[in-house]
Amino acid sequence: MDQNELKRLVGEKSVEWIKDGMVVGLGTGSTVYYMVEALGRRIKEEGLKITGVTTSNVTADQARKLSIPLASVDEVDHIDLVIDGADEISSDFQGIKGGGAALLFEKIVAINSAKVLWIVDESKMKKHLGAFPLPVEVIPYGSQKIFDRFEAKGLNPTFRKQANGSLLLTDSDNYIIDLHLNEIKDPHALADYLIKEVGVVEHGLFLDMVNTVIVGKQEGPVILHARD
Amino acid sequence: MDQNELKRLVGEKSVEWIKDGMVVGLGTGSTVYYMVEALGRRIKEEGLKITGVTTSNVTADQARKLSIPLASVDEVDHIDLVIDGADEISSDFQGIKGGGAALLFEKIVAINSAKVLWIVDESKMKKHLGAFPLPVEVIPYGSQKIFDRFEAKGLNPTFRKQANGSLLLTDSDNYIIDLHLNEIKDPHALADYLIKEVGVVEHGLFLDMVNTVIVGKQEGPVILHARD
Repeated sequence: MDQNELKRLVGEKSVEWIKDGMVVGLGTGSTVYYMVEALGRRIKEEGLKITGVTTSNVTADQARKLSIPLASVDEVDHIDLVIDGADEISSDFQGIKGGGAALLFEKIVAINSAKVLWIVDESKMKKHLGAFPLPVEVIPYGSQKIFDRFEAKGLNPTFRKQANGSLLLTDSDNYIIDLHLNEIKDPHALADYLIKEVGVVEHGLFLDMVNTVIVGKQEGPVILHARD
Repeated sequence: MDQNELKRLVGEKSVEWIKDGMVVGLGTGSTVYYMVEALGRRIKEEGLKITGVTTSNVTADQARKLSIPLASVDEVDHIDLVIDGADEISSDFQGIKGGGAALLFEKIVAINSAKVLWIVDESKMKKHLGAFPLPVEVIPYGSQKIFDRFEAKGLNPTFRKQANGSLLLTDSDNYIIDLHLNEIKDPHALADYLIKEVGVVEHGLFLDMVNTVIVGKQEGPVILHARD
């Protein structure tokens, strides 16, 4: 099976976690795409009643087309479960997210959710974090100065650009700086440093957050219990 | 002298710190207003050459009318000095800022400045911080959930509103939540908690940051050395 087929299978598998009446966070990305499609089918075919809480304009648009009822994180009194992708998961179940530039809303929904479920193909499972560039969302004003400080610290920053070469803007109209680190030895220390930098809105380290991971392998989806 | 007169006198006094060729951060607020007016006069009358780095649209508009040359924080290679107001300064020279909702850009300019000078009337000098409500700038998405967490922690939050009753938007299109704390016993611990809350962009605690304070007193401006 190719990578897309693995993504499709875990996406479809993950909707088994969704029960009637749930408030469900809907992540963002190429694997989540298949989950949202499968959720749309369950709503249409089984009459499943859920409320979706989206993490990006892209997923919101997809969900609306499938007639999935939506609410903002502030309109619901709780979220039962969020199903999202990840760009990299370490052997101790820490994660990097933000390849799709939606890390801020993804993290806001995740911390407000009772359970966090990540769906990934097997290429995302690593011993350590850091081969995937770590996204950092920053306020545009002063962003060149933050970039310079990251560079001085040897964090190998690059501004994320759109296909047309202009700087990418997030759903909150901020920039993304990607840090090319190869290996992150102490994710907690790095997270602590990054969040205290003035002008950093959020970073892509999702630590101590995921409860369950569904990994797409050639032999089929494998379910890993990360933490309660 | 009334409070406005004290503000005018410290504003005018503070421009003595500005030397030819400097890059000067220009704060925001009713005291800074007088500083910017006095700076405009020095440029016009003495031919003083400086570059101003603004912290808000309001101050940028005022500076442009006075023909003060402006650049963004990212367009200058350094800032020599920032002159700004403060809403409250404790006896150990910690500060609360953000009454004018410009705390984010004010802090970005301050941390990029070699020296920080605050100008205040004497009513701003307190033993402890906290009588002034502490502003926290938050991402709109999820802001009700942050508000609920602040309330559960006993931090007495209120959303800042405009005169017309709608929620105030900062220059970065975020909301301000004011925390009514009466007394902040450990500003560093509170700052650490706030900045790690997902969705908090920045808070109004300016700790270990100011070098010099000019206080407007009835007997005239008093200059206090806070730290090197």
